[in-house]
Amino acid sequence: MNIYTERVDRLREKMTEAGIDVYYIPMSDCHNSEYVAPHFKCISFISGFTGSAGSVVVTKDQAWLFADGRYFIQAANQLEGSGIELMKIGEPGVPELYDFLVEKSRGKVLGFDGSVVPAWFGNRFSGDVKCDRDLAGEIWTDRPEQIFTDIYELPFESVGETAGSKISRIRKELEGHVKEGTDYLYIINSLDDIAWIFNLRADDVENNPVQFAYAAITRDRVKLYTGAELPDIPFEKGEYSPKCLCIEGYDTVLMDVSRISFDTYRYYKEKGADIIDIANPSTLMKGIKNSVEIACLKEALVMDSAVMVNFMYWLKKNIGTIPMDEVSVADYLEDLRSAQEGFIGLSFGTISAYGANAAQMHYSPKRGSCAVIEPKGFLLVDSGGQYMKGTTDITRTFAMGPVTAEEKKAFTLTAASMLRLADAKFIKGCQGEVLDIMAREPMWREGWDYKCGTGHGVGHILNVHEGPHNIRWKINHDHPTAVLEPGMIVTDEPGVYREGQFGIRTENELLVKVYKETSDGTFYEFDNLTFIPIDKDAIDKEYLTAEDLRMLNEYHAEVYRVIAPLVDDEVREWLKEYTAEL
Amino acid sequence: MNIYTERVDRLREKMTEAGIDVYYIPMSDCHNSEYVAPHFKCISFISGFTGSAGSVVVTKDQAWLFADGRYFIQAANQLEGSGIELMKIGEPGVPELYDFLVEKSRGKVLGFDGSVVPAWFGNRFSGDVKCDRDLAGEIWTDRPEQIFTDIYELPFESVGETAGSKISRIRKELEGHVKEGTDYLYIINSLDDIAWIFNLRADDVENNPVQFAYAAITRDRVKLYTGAELPDIPFEKGEYSPKCLCIEGYDTVLMDVSRISFDTYRYYKEKGADIIDIANPSTLMKGIKNSVEIACLKEALVMDSAVMVNFMYWLKKNIGTIPMDEVSVADYLEDLRSAQEGFIGLSFGTISAYGANAAQMHYSPKRGSCAVIEPKGFLLVDSGGQYMKGTTDITRTFAMGPVTAEEKKAFTLTAASMLRLADAKFIKGCQGEVLDIMAREPMWREGWDYKCGTGHGVGHILNVHEGPHNIRWKINHDHPTAVLEPGMIVTDEPGVYREGQFGIRTENELLVKVYKETSDGTFYEFDNLTFIPIDKDAIDKEYLTAEDLRMLNEYHAEVYRVIAPLVDDEVREWLKEYTAEL
Repeated sequence: MNIYTERVDRLREKMTEAGIDVYYIPMSDCHNSEYVAPHFKCISFISGFTGSAGSVVVTKDQAWLFADGRYFIQAANQLEGSGIELMKIGEPGVPELYDFLVEKSRGKVLGFDGSVVPAWFGNRFSGDVKCDRDLAGEIWTDRPEQIFTDIYELPFESVGETAGSKISRIRKELEGHVKEGTDYLYIINSLDDIAWIFNLRADDVENNPVQFAYAAITRDRVKLYTGAELPDIPFEKGEYSPKCLCIEGYDTVLMDVSRISFDTYRYYKEKGADIIDIANPSTLMKGIKNSVEIACLKEALVMDSAVMVNFMYWLKKNIGTIPMDEVSVADYLEDLRSAQEGFIGLSFGTISAYGANAAQMHYSPKRGSCAVIEPKGFLLVDSGGQYMKGTTDITRTFAMGPVTAEEKKAFTLTAASMLRLADAKFIKGCQGEVLDIMAREPMWREGWDYKCGTGHGVGHILNVHEGPHNIRWKINHDHPTAVLEPGMIVTDEPGVYREGQFGIRTENELLVKVYKETSDGTFYEFDNLTFIPIDKDAIDKEYLTAEDLRMLNEYHAEVYRVIAPLVDDEVREWLKEYTAEL
Repeated sequence: MNIYTERVDRLREKMTEAGIDVYYIPMSDCHNSEYVAPHFKCISFISGFTGSAGSVVVTKDQAWLFADGRYFIQAANQLEGSGIELMKIGEPGVPELYDFLVEKSRGKVLGFDGSVVPAWFGNRFSGDVKCDRDLAGEIWTDRPEQIFTDIYELPFESVGETAGSKISRIRKELEGHVKEGTDYLYIINSLDDIAWIFNLRADDVENNPVQFAYAAITRDRVKLYTGAELPDIPFEKGEYSPKCLCIEGYDTVLMDVSRISFDTYRYYKEKGADIIDIANPSTLMKGIKNSVEIACLKEALVMDSAVMVNFMYWLKKNIGTIPMDEVSVADYLEDLRSAQEGFIGLSFGTISAYGANAAQMHYSPKRGSCAVIEPKGFLLVDSGGQYMKGTTDITRTFAMGPVTAEEKKAFTLTAASMLRLADAKFIKGCQGEVLDIMAREPMWREGWDYKCGTGHGVGHILNVHEGPHNIRWKINHDHPTAVLEPGMIVTDEPGVYREGQFGIRTENELLVKVYKETSDGTFYEFDNLTFIPIDKDAIDKEYLTAEDLRMLNEYHAEVYRVIAPLVDDEVREWLKEYTAEL
């Protein structure tokens, strides 16, 4: 019997015992984090699916995994033989998770662990709900412990604003939500918000330099609850409790209901507190980088671009000579990064995907069983570093030898997509949904669509994915994205993914800045922060408009100008060729 | 003393008598119509402002008119000397009308006429509100009567679906909102919805071929309440009551709260009915034209394009020879239209704007005092017809002689904007907000922005503006626009407006249709429905990309192909020249 079938059956026994008919397991922790520590990967334990996002639903006789477009191929492979059905989010006929849960639990009892479900979602269910038990955890005998790593403070030169100043700004925002003089309690559970506010970092979630923590801010007190010892900071310290942050004595409690856990929300609700739902003010504040952060990040991205140029040169020079596989090249790249000043670690697990593997957007190569790279076809490398100067996120797809005409077309249109978005000019007030088509239109024209957003925010020495803004085309009225503002960083990463054939993605990071101020308004544009050639070996000029070609040539000239001084003679010579006008 | 100052003072006396501190007057009727009959133009009476949209707010010592970007210039002129302050909607520092009303009436009494304010808006006020008196109407002694014109039925060949079939589809939708077997009442007050459902037309609102009416649909009854006699239709008939549709005997009442009047809503609310707020199902249904409507409309637009080609030829040939002014050319154009088969009337008052007048997007020339057209500069003509085949909306801007380099640049970029949106390919699921940048980006690149949407839906033998879709960039989470679907008509009308200098707009109508179906999804594109040259005399190729030029030449070739057979030899020769490859 498949090991996961067995685990699902054991979960069903627990469900029967608990009087639960439908059990829902999110890929989440008590902080509604995007990426979770091993301790919280109940979904991997139950289903075998190792992607970073997903949801499992189990009934007496069926089980489903909901996964998004990045994971359709991987999830299908990993679920094979488990009896768990894959629900491809966003595909025609696939219901929304919420609607699905409502339908399956109609007249029945729905269960989930209220400590790992955000309040906004838990609140939507009006029927019979049991949320006080972590049934998957109960059968997970060798579950990894929740780890608390050392916490360190970032120097002012890396962040440009003290925690005290940030808290003042936050309090000012909070005071706009409460009556004058009210003695409020504001609680925060999102790890990147806490890390940003206090200028503290740790290593509690792989690749995300955050610490498990809660924070509480009132009119006159600030308290930080952590599992590891805190450096000397001018705020009260408290003990981390794994499930919920329960503080007595306040009638007015502010929280971000989209982030706070259902358990925490219920605690205050049941006490009769007046709960005021606000977007964590720090989310927008940290999305808009200050001048110190921008200066640091630009340095980090130039440094990281030079790393990638050296890596690309090494790949191009040695393919067919040195044996390479997906893991060995990722290791080589990590070695290059770790030799850089201020290197902390990778910002996410390197996606090193050769040939058809790259059709899985978030492919993760396995040491020992990964693909060998041959002198033909595409290698996609999506990677990034955490440095004391900033966080990077870069994708390039390399022609390792001959590529087909179809692959060249897809690669060339991906380059055009990336460059067109990077070149966009837009008026103040635009959300990312307005801009998405700039990248996607060349794809749509071919009847192609990449099943993910075009771009996301990037944290500063923090999570590689962050809000409150992004670039995508689907307008979500329940979870609006933030208006783009100068100082926001966003990735620009269109791609083409053909199951069983190839995958292509080209990703730069962009900075929103002021373009023009006229009597008609204020206009913005992007500053390109990433300087790596777009592999000319896979460009077919036939698919570029004159404008596209101009932008590509200008981009390459800029890459040469910025990177040439940073690499040695041999690489510089090569770079000249790979950035030459086409 | 200014006549409007005097009227505002008389309104203030009424306010004092009624115990009202802040009085709000919308430009609206009991049906939340976009354009209102003279009877409902209280704002014009009070303020002198004659635009089609706006709001007046009066307090004891101040008065304001809120107007949108189409009317900034006109409103400023018309308010001069009245003491009424212009609030430019959307400009920095100008509050939202709602926020403004809340602030001005804090701790005071707000008043408005609840029969002409939609329920969604009236419902937002929680303070002291008096909404049972039309104070402006009370002082308006020579107020025009509400007129009820003859109602006629459209033949099946013009509409392609019977009222009975439409009502079946509506009932099916309604039944998804109520528990099985519930005896519901559904009331409709929006005039274009009613006209569409019953395939009836009249002439109660200028240029909008609608009748003042209410409709009620239940499980087994359909009743239409009108002020004029109805043709022989298989439905119950009722008497129109000016203020509100009050029907007894139903506990479950469905209505579109965004359209229904506050008075009507309150009537059912106070009776304790269970009010279910739905979007009128007919709004989306009528937005998606059926094959008969599309075939008719295409004919109407070709016919109307030929009219415009003859008009353009006449302008170009006779300028400098025949005296022309804004009204005389509009009259000439109306004569051409009225000679066409099935002509009903104009679809809106012709905007014939010469030189700087065209900077007012919705300029309305006055007979006797309008501008004389000279053989230089631009004439903007935005016009359309109501025909038995369909409704048209077309704008062209004509160089009447030499134009400046700056004018040429603006004209050429407007052409590029219009063509780029018309050429867009997009995936199923997109709202207009995703597409807007295709038109606007060339403008934004110059630091220009037209202060209006790029496009709107067009009714079929009905209102020239209709939802539920449109093309604009600002995402409004409170009033989401509909996803674009095949069969929807949308205008594509970018422009450049320079106060005191010139105004340019180029407008085609587009039809959404299927482009491709692939494994990545279903993709849509637009079918161009309007065939009139874009005046080459004002094109400066320097501002066109190679792609823009290709699209312009292809468009012109199509204009010639479609229109050449419909005009006489002399015009055809001229058309050949004006559609020749550039």
